[in-house]
This record gives sequence, C-alpha cells and structure tokens, in this order.
Amino acid sequence: MCGIFCYLNYLTPQTKKYILDTLLQGLKRMEYRGYDSAGLAVDRCCGDKSTVIVRERGKVASLEKLVNVSQELNMDEVCNIHCGIAHTRWATHGEPAPRNSHPHRSDANNTFVVIHNGIVTNYMAIKNFLVEKGYTDFESETDTEVVAKLALYIYNENPSTTFQELVETLIGMIDGAFAFLFKSNKFPDQVIATRRGSPLIVAIKADVEMLTEYFPILYSSDRTSSSGVNRNEIPSPSGHSGGDLPNGTTNINGRISPGTAMTASAGSGEFKLGGKTPVEYFFASDASAVIEHTNKVIYLEDNDIAHVDNAGGLHIMRTKKKHANEKDFRSVNTLQLKLEEIMKGSYNYFMEKEIFEQPESVVNTMRGRLNFETGQVVLGGLVEHLDDIKRSRRLIMIACGTSFHSALATRQILEELSQLPVMVELASDFMDRHTPIFRDDVCFFISQSGETADSLLALRYCKKRGALCVGVTNTVGSSISRETSCGVHINAGPEIGVASTKAYTSQIISLLMFALLISADRISMMERRKAIISELEKLPKKIEKVLELAEDLKKLAEQYQKENSFLIMGRGYNYATCLEGALKIKEITYMHSEGIMTGELKHGPLALVEATMPIIMIAVRDSVYVNCQNALQQVISRGGKPILICEEGDEEIVRLATDKDGNCKLAQVIRVPKTVDCLAGVLTVIPLQLISLYVAVRNGLNVDCPRNLAKSVTVE
Amino acid sequence: MCGIFCYLNYLTPQTKKYILDTLLQGLKRMEYRGYDSAGLAVDRCCGDKSTVIVRERGKVASLEKLVNVSQELNMDEVCNIHCGIAHTRWATHGEPAPRNSHPHRSDANNTFVVIHNGIVTNYMAIKNFLVEKGYTDFESETDTEVVAKLALYIYNENPSTTFQELVETLIGMIDGAFAFLFKSNKFPDQVIATRRGSPLIVAIKADVEMLTEYFPILYSSDRTSSSGVNRNEIPSPSGHSGGDLPNGTTNINGRISPGTAMTASAGSGEFKLGGKTPVEYFFASDASAVIEHTNKVIYLEDNDIAHVDNAGGLHIMRTKKKHANEKDFRSVNTLQLKLEEIMKGSYNYFMEKEIFEQPESVVNTMRGRLNFETGQVVLGGLVEHLDDIKRSRRLIMIACGTSFHSALATRQILEELSQLPVMVELASDFMDRHTPIFRDDVCFFISQSGETADSLLALRYCKKRGALCVGVTNTVGSSISRETSCGVHINAGPEIGVASTKAYTSQIISLLMFALLISADRISMMERRKAIISELEKLPKKIEKVLELAEDLKKLAEQYQKENSFLIMGRGYNYATCLEGALKIKEITYMHSEGIMTGELKHGPLALVEATMPIIMIAVRDSVYVNCQNALQQVISRGGKPILICEEGDEEIVRLATDKDGNCKLAQVIRVPKTVDCLAGVLTVIPLQLISLYVAVRNGLNVDCPRNLAKSVTVE
Repeated sequence: MCGIFCYLNYLTPQTKKYILDTLLQGLKRMEYRGYDSAGLAVDRCCGDKSTVIVRERGKVASLEKLVNVSQELNMDEVCNIHCGIAHTRWATHGEPAPRNSHPHRSDANNTFVVIHNGIVTNYMAIKNFLVEKGYTDFESETDTEVVAKLALYIYNENPSTTFQELVETLIGMIDGAFAFLFKSNKFPDQVIATRRGSPLIVAIKADVEMLTEYFPILYSSDRTSSSGVNRNEIPSPSGHSGGDLPNGTTNINGRISPGTAMTASAGSGEFKLGGKTPVEYFFASDASAVIEHTNKVIYLEDNDIAHVDNAGGLHIMRTKKKHANEKDFRSVNTLQLKLEEIMKGSYNYFMEKEIFEQPESVVNTMRGRLNFETGQVVLGGLVEHLDDIKRSRRLIMIACGTSFHSALATRQILEELSQLPVMVELASDFMDRHTPIFRDDVCFFISQSGETADSLLALRYCKKRGALCVGVTNTVGSSISRETSCGVHINAGPEIGVASTKAYTSQIISLLMFALLISADRISMMERRKAIISELEKLPKKIEKVLELAEDLKKLAEQYQKENSFLIMGRGYNYATCLEGALKIKEITYMHSEGIMTGELKHGPLALVEATMPIIMIAVRDSVYVNCQNALQQVISRGGKPILICEEGDEEIVRLATDKDGNCKLAQVIRVPKTVDCLAGVLTVIPLQLISLYVAVRNGLNVDCPRNLAKSVTVE
Repeated sequence: MCGIFCYLNYLTPQTKKYILDTLLQGLKRMEYRGYDSAGLAVDRCCGDKSTVIVRERGKVASLEKLVNVSQELNMDEVCNIHCGIAHTRWATHGEPAPRNSHPHRSDANNTFVVIHNGIVTNYMAIKNFLVEKGYTDFESETDTEVVAKLALYIYNENPSTTFQELVETLIGMIDGAFAFLFKSNKFPDQVIATRRGSPLIVAIKADVEMLTEYFPILYSSDRTSSSGVNRNEIPSPSGHSGGDLPNGTTNINGRISPGTAMTASAGSGEFKLGGKTPVEYFFASDASAVIEHTNKVIYLEDNDIAHVDNAGGLHIMRTKKKHANEKDFRSVNTLQLKLEEIMKGSYNYFMEKEIFEQPESVVNTMRGRLNFETGQVVLGGLVEHLDDIKRSRRLIMIACGTSFHSALATRQILEELSQLPVMVELASDFMDRHTPIFRDDVCFFISQSGETADSLLALRYCKKRGALCVGVTNTVGSSISRETSCGVHINAGPEIGVASTKAYTSQIISLLMFALLISADRISMMERRKAIISELEKLPKKIEKVLELAEDLKKLAEQYQKENSFLIMGRGYNYATCLEGALKIKEITYMHSEGIMTGELKHGPLALVEATMPIIMIAVRDSVYVNCQNALQQVISRGGKPILICEEGDEEIVRLATDKDGNCKLAQVIRVPKTVDCLAGVLTVIPLQLISLYVAVRNGLNVDCPRNLAKSVTVE
C-alpha cells in the first residue's frame, strides 16, 4: 500500500546523481507495496532550493527513465546538505496517472510537497473548507492533495509558525490513516515525518557510536493553537472518527537543539546527531528499503512527529502523554535483516523463490521451539501468558486475506487440542459488527507484515475491552508485534512477493505449535500430539516432494492458462486450502477463481459444474474422505472433469472416478505425500501456489506485482 | 433431492390411466426436488401382478410421453386394488440416464423394485457382498440398485419371511440416509415405506372419520434375525456409521390386523382402515404432492417402517423403543396447506411468484407476533425457553446455503441486542470439525424445508451435548421442527422455486424478531428497538417500491445476460446480501458470481477489477458508508464500472463516482428506499433476486429447475 522514502544527507557531500539513484533504489525495494505510479521531489540545485517534482505513471523503472532525461536537474552537482523524498503508489483515489501521483504540491511554486501512504477520510470536508478560503487550484482526484494545500493555508495564516507546529496543527485536522513526509522550500534541507495507522521508520547512518538505546520524546503542552488555525473549522465526517486526534496544540516545549546532548529519560547515555557531525537519514515504509545503508532504525508510533531540522538534528515529538505508562522514548533498534534475504537470488520472481523456500522456512519457524524427541514446545513469546490463555473462555483469531485463511486452516486442531471454542473473524467484518468482546477472551492477530490496518484496528478495539491480545507476525518491530501483550514471530524470513506463500505455511505451523503447547499437559492428547510432532519433523522432506511436481504443474498451467474461471473444492482441513488457492489464482492470474466448501455444493455451486468448467478437487484420507468421494462422484455425474489433488498411493479414489469401460473422468491427478490431517493443508496448498505462479508467468503477467494489489494493506 | 411417491388404491376402482396420471402428477408437484430423470412402476394388469417399469431421462414430462405410448399398459383397464410407485431423480451416483433412473430392480423379473431418496454410503461393501453371493447382474452405477438386489437376496435366503421382516433386516444392513419405497410381485398390492434421514409422509384418504388422533407403533422385540440374514455379513465402512441401526431383529410383536380396532395408547379413540372399507394411500417426500387428494397425513420418523398390507391395513413398526420417553404413536395431522399456494397463479415461474409475494410473506411472518403500537413481540414457540436462552453463554446459528446467509445477515443485530457472542456455522463444516459444544450454548438450526441433512445432523450432535436447540423452519412437521426443543415457524408459505427467495427474507425477519424479543427487557435498547419495529411496519410498502424496479432490472439483465462472471461487493449488514445475491446468480444463471466483502478487496479480489468485469456494489448510509465509498473509489480508480445499489436520495455517492468532466463512472444506479441498517438487507437483496431471474429467463433457462440442483438437500 504505497511506499514512501526520504533520503536526507547532512554534511555528507553527494552528487545529485547519487541522491536520485538512492531515492529510486529505495522505491524499487518497496515496489511490492504499490507500483501503478511513482514520483519524487528534490531541490533544483544548491543555489536554488526550490523544489522540482518528477512523476510518472507505471513502475519505478518508468520514473527512472524520466529522471535520467530531465533537463531541470544537473546530475553532477554535489550537494553538501540535501533532502529528497520519493513515493511509489498504489491507487485508492483517482486512476493511476501522473496528475494523481505523489508528491502532491500546495501550489504552482511547490511551496509544500507531501507524500502519503494511507487514506484521508475527511478529505472532501477539507477540500470544501479550502475552496471556501480561495484555494481552488486542485490538480488531482486524490485525497492527498488537500494535505499539501492545507499546509500552505496554515503557513499563510501565520508565516511565523515553525515547521513542527505547522504539521502538528495539520494532522490535528485530519481523519484517517497516514504516513506523511513533508518537504518545503520555506524550510529547506529539512523533512518532517508523521504517521497514524501506516508504518514508518527512521534509519540513521552516522559515524557516531549509538550507545544510547533510547531516543527521548518531546511533548508539546496542552494549549490552543498558535498557528492561528483550529481543527474545529473542519466539519467532522459523519460517524467516523480518526482516532487519537491531537487537539490543535502546537507550541512545543523542551525542544532540544541540534548538537545538544540529548539525555534519554529512560536510557543510559547520550549521543549527538547533526551539528558538526555528518549524518544521513532515511525514512521509509519498511526496513527492506534502508538495510543496504544502515541497520540502525527507530520505529515511529502513531501520532509521532519526527523532524530533521536544518542543523541535522532529529527530534521526535508528540502532543502530550495520553497514559501514564506510555513510553517516553523510542529505542534505536538494530535490524537483523540481511540484504541477500530481500534479493531474488537465482529465481525469476520473489514469489517463486518464496514458494521454493518453504522446506527451509518451515524449519525456521520450528527451530528452537519444538523438540522432536521429547515433544516439548517452547514459544518464548507466550511463556508468561500461557496460564491466562488456558483459563480463557474463547480463542478468537482475527485477520485478513491469506492470514485469515491460516486461521481457518488451524481452527479445527485448535478446537480439538484446546477444547475451547475457537472463532475466526475477518478483521474488517469484526470491526463493522462492533463484535462483543469480553475480558476472558484471548484474541490472536495474524498478519505477515504486522501492519495490516484492519487487524491493527481490531487489536486496539480488543485491547481496550481487556482481552488478552496475541500477535502472530513475520515482522519484528511491526505495529502488531509492538502493541500486543505477547506473541509468536513466525520467522519465515522477509516475504516480498505480493501474493503470500511461505508466510501462509509458517503461520499454520506457528498456530499449530501453539495448539501443541496449550495441550502439552493433557494425558488424553499425548498420542495425538506425538503423531503431529512426528509429522512436523518429516514435513520439510514432504514439502520437497511436493515441489518436485513443478514440471508437471507447468504443463497443467499451459493447458488452463486461457480459462476465465476456476473452482477449487474441498472440505474439512482442506477448505482453507481451497480458499487460499483460489486467492492465489485471483491475485496473480486475474482469473475468477473461488474456493468452494463441498458440503455446500448441493446448495448452489453445483449449478456451475459442466464439462468445460475448470475444477480442482482436494481429497485426502482424513475423516471427511467419504464425503469428498461423494462430492467427486457428484461433480463427475454432472459432467465435470476435475483435477484431483490426493494422497500418494490412493488408488481407491481414482478407481471411483473411472467408469465401467475404464475411462477415468479426471483431468489430472496430483499426488502429495500422506501426512497427519491437520498438516495436509501445508502440502495441498503448494500445488495451487505453483499453478497460479505458472499460469501467471505463461500469460506474461508480473507475478511479484499483480495489478491493483500491493503488499501490506495499511489502510482500511 | 429426489421426490418419491406412491399411490395405493384399496377397494377403490380406478382406471390404469387415472393411476398413472396420479403418479405423474405427484411427481410434477415434487419436481423441484430433482428433475434429471424420472420413473415409475405399476402392475402389468389385474390378472398379472408382475411389475412394469417405465423410466426416462429428463423431466417428468418426458416420462409422461413415454408412458402414453407404452404398449405394455392397458390404460382403460380398471383396477380395484393397485399399488404404483414413482420417482423423480436428482443424480448423485451415476450420470442422468435411464439405466440410472429409479425404480431399480432386483432382477430381470422385477421381483423387488425400490425407489430411494438419499445416499447409501456402504453400497460398495454391499455390492461386493452380493457379487460374492452370485448376484452380479448390476445394470446401473447407482447406490440404490444394491438395495433392490439385497432385498431379493434376503428373500431367497428365507422365502417364508414376511415383507416387513425382510425390510427390517434390510435397513439393518444399510448405512447412510434414505427414504425407500418397496414394491414386490411376491407381495402384491402392498407397499413398504421406511426412512432414515430423508423425509417421508403417509397421506390417507378414506371415508372414515379419523377421530383418533394417534397411530400406535408396533415394536418388534429384541431377538436375532429370523430371515436368516445378519447385518454382520456386511463389512462396516471405515469410520462412518449410519447412526441408529436396528440390529437384525425382525420378528414383530403385537401386529394389528387390518380392520381391527386400533386403540391408540396415548390417543382418545379408534378407527379402522382397510378390511371392507375403501381407502387410498399416498406416500410422498413432501406434502405438496398429496394436498390435492387429502389433508390427513402422518409424518414418519427415522427408522419407522410403514406397511400397507394386502388387506389395506396400515401398520407402523419399529425395532424397539430406544428411550423411555420416546413417543409410541404417530399423530394423524391435518395439513393447513392450500392447493393454490403451491400453484404458480398468473406468474410464469414459481421463483417469480415467490419474489413478488414478499410484501405479503413478510407480513405473514410478523402476523400476530409483533405489536407495532406497544412494541411487544410474542414468539409462541419460544415462550417456555426464553429465560434459558437469555442465560446462555453463546448463540450459535447453524445452517446451509441461503439459510446460512440469513444467519450472517442477522448476526450483527443479534450481537448488538443480545450482547452475547453469536457464532455462525456452515452445518457441514461444523460437523467436519467436531466443534466443541457446551451445555450452556443455544443452537439455532435454520432451514426452509426443515429437512436439510447437514443441519439435521448438526442438530442431533448439539442435542446430544445438552445444548438448547431452536428450529427456524418454514415447514410444519419437518424433522428439524420436530426434533428441536422449541422454534420459530417463519410462515412464508410454501416455497417451490429451487432458488430460495421469500424464505430468505422471512428468515431474516424471524431472527430479527427473536433479537427484539430477547432485548425487550433492556431499557438501553428501547430506542433502537422502537426504530426497528417502526421500520418493520413500513417494510411491506418498501418492498413493493423495490419490486417496481422490475422493468429497469429486466433491461439491465439484457445488458449482462452473456457475461461469464459477476462480482457482488459490500460489507457490514449487506455482506450477506452479496453472498445471497451471488448464490442466486450462480444457481439459476450458471454465471460464476461471487460475493465479496469489500474490506477484503485489497487483500486479493481487487486484482479481478477491470473495465469489462461486471460488478455490483451495495452502499447504504449505515455505519460502514464511508468504507463503502472508499471501496467504490478504489474500484473506479482501477477502471471498474460498477452497478451501484444505494438508497433513494443519496446523491453524494453518485457525485463521488463522477469525474471533473461530469462523466459518471457507474454502469447503473439502483435505488432502494432507506430503512434501518439491520433491515436494509431485505431490500437490497430483491434487485439481485430479480436480476438473476431475468438473466436466466433471457437465456432460456428453467428458473424453477436449475441444472444439477434440487430443493431440500436431504443428503449430506
């Protein structure tokens, strides 16, 4: 969902060429977050700090071409201090087009330029307000442009306002989700970053030992606006509040000057940034964009305003402390991510790499947590809360998209091993319904990025109601991992492909390990646990066997590449596989595919079955095997010719699909190794991941950047 | 799911023509239950009681043609006593073809013929057993044929066995769901009917005052088989038990002879059937097939064996009483159904009639239950259990297909008004998962027919675990209404169209009334309840307004009739509308349509959006209106051109979809009257019902008999 990036070099001479390349490379690393248009803003030249904007429809490569032929920029000029911002877009408001691309500007002079990841929900109200005030030169259909214009309005009302005050006033007037970066020729060589709901990190590269683990926050006091502009002038949108709004308070106390020693209130030392010390700052939506420069990052929290001033100092401020136990510092974290982890290696696509990584990624998920000999499970993140979880009334898993499917895939085993009611909720629907939540509920929030907007909103909703909140994410330092009481890191390694693959299988294994953990004390479950743990040990080898089907599946993809529709049918543990497989096909091949519970076939979907409808059916020898056989016979008796995913050595079901004259009614049989029921989904989903990959490749589609989609959905 | 029918006239002279017409007419009334082939069996002539079978692929009309040209039958011959059976099929095993049609026979002499509704799950085991015994002349791929052959085998093993004993032995060897009718030239002028899982009624037409309200059951004692055949000879299918199997006990005690006074053990009188008194019997899968002949019916229970002997006497027997509190009688009920209710009237299709009946059917659902002035709600069926329900821990709604959607549609208002956790479960998945159920759970089973196999299984599962079970059905006397502790009859009138329409809206209103009832005592809910009740009063008029859109929707259908796919998008209360609308389109137009939660758009489905993809979006001014606006903008910015269903007078959202040059990006706007949030789904679903109807009609499809589907899914 949009990638935002800033490179600010302070007392670090760089050519314009280097600066532009750095900005473009940062965008490329985040391209999976959105890629329908891109843009950047830099200074005209050292002597003229007016802002030049370059924007182009399409991927970052298109922008790069345009930049390289720009007449406005002198590539060889060396800048001692410079601030550049850049954006790769995933359209929500307004079609992909240069005029709708970021950065957006306040006026023809580019006085204020802004880039944005999120949605401003009250933008119509702000627009009406600005039009009334005479700001009418809107150029785009976006929600973001009003923000740039609003900044200019606030500035014009009180030109003596500081950059920090201005942005604080501004975000007080905005409802919705955002991460913003502001650049202005009124405040040259500076940048302001702020977020609410969308992720944003600050990375620091400096030849200073950052002994200080903590970065103090500066609080503005609780007074009315000094910028002369008040939030109350903007009508509030009906029934939709943006959450924690600072209330038009802008004077800032306790500002620490650049170069001044900043004594951390909770930390144990001090360090200096800026002043006479060279430093480079990177702001980005995620860590993959900065790791090649530095591994020192600060994760910004909602409503933080981070400011790099014209003396190279970094300040993080908030309006005021809301709770006594709120942290009054931000840690400087050291990223564990390695650059090669976010490279494609010998694969053509990230998605391909991630599918084939699964024998390894599932091992990483289990490593150090599961003792195959003793059957002991240790999930470090849950140790302190395990007893609370066992004493709860309900387990509720809340997620979106693929993560939601991993919840469905493990619901049954969780019910069986925990003997608790387990509910599974789509985060958006959960919020829409204002679902009743109780203090004895345990809520799991599953999200690869840990930033999924709806899941994060649901987390805050449940936390407020006293439920114990558990995070299951793949991203250390993500909002969900920080805001939950405890959690499990699925440790699948960075996932770059927009269509989630290895995260799905690792989520299943993480939740399954939780089920094993919670039932560790039950004698009646010993046999069952043992069987599962033994199969978990064998799982990587079995995944490898499934991956050996790749060549066969390539041929299958060739046969089906021109279809319009796909139905994927199964039930029990494999129902989640059907939904997840259909989602993969939807996402990257753009075929209309749907996962169908075979128990519901006769209630409607059977009407779609005919000889020409592509159908995949999944049947393994578990407790619903007989029902799957029945469904297969029904489909065949209606003229369907399904592809069957079944277990190695299962001849019975193939016989069932063969008529008296020996004609097999199956289009193809895909055999996966036998495993325990609750793990079958890990094996049966892989052929579907591969089919979607190969169909998309054959159709010439960009597997890693499917149309209209982006990874990490950070807006509602 | 298959219709079965029998007409037995005893001392009532009828021409063969009349008998055949009666059988065919009975099938036609049940054609919505299955219509891919049909067949019947009658006696050759009065002097030769050998059985003639006529079968044909296709609808009943095809069978009728074949019957009318039959050389084997003398139409004018008058039969004083005669038994004929007939069947309309919905294929589950074996493609639709004469050889797979019912009746199935034991051998070339048609010694035993059988018709069946259900699935015999252990048919392969029985077949292997029979082949071993030398019964090898199988003619079909069905599960039913083995039953006819098994009957002959049992007879051959002990020719002195009685018809009752034979059938009792036989059903003891069968796993699965069934309603069977048996006819045999070894037992001429007789019929045996038995059921387990599938519905079956006996209707009686006789010039006898049926003062006796009860029909006594005859119990066979607990001994080993006298037929010489034992269930244990058939291997049991792995892990799949057919439920309550009588155990090879066949001698029957206390048989009451025809013409003998039958003193009802719990009743208050006596009556005679058969002997010297003329009587006509009808056996049928549902009441609509018999109502034109008589309104006196007996509902058979699982494992009942009903036998009309050669003296015209009717006997109902069971193996043995299983529980002390089991009823030992069957009531003779008087049907309230009227013939005109199951006729199409001036409409071309039942579905059309049922859609247009909705202003009336919703009134019938509320009639006598809701006092619009005082706000009082009375649901007679729940009075005794209301306190128990209020004290429960969870409400769980369990259903399939359209009924499942009605549960989704009302989940939020139930959560809001009851302040209890509400879960919604697909019956098949609920059973697959062996979901934990507790004694303080209240489980709702929603089913139009009250016979849906999966819902019925779930009901028994929950009942066994001590949960309070509540039925919500449209069919008095159905299995679900009989086996639940209490319930609500939705009173929508008979629904014949396979695609459910008016039952859906009446289910929503029934569940909503329940929500109003359970919150009647809460002061904080008074305003909300008042608003809902006031809107319920206005609902019929508003439905009429929606129905006035019919002509516009016909035009729309013309535009979209040739599409392959349809996406229907919405969220909140209207998510259920999307699923239900998509199901209608699937069921009767065979287009691949899918309901999509707009909250999930960015997690995958958005990839499908392009200019040529037909999309319907629903947005009404409820609490998710802003989110719906966002979704609409996303779809438009991706080039989509959706049909929008919104509220009358909502210009804001249309403006939002209009660009600067005044071009509206909507394909069409469908406006429905404004109502309270939780009732909007009743209004927004109707345009979708009509669109599916008109598309199907334009494409020349049979709206009431969609391919591959049947009403009332009585097998798993």
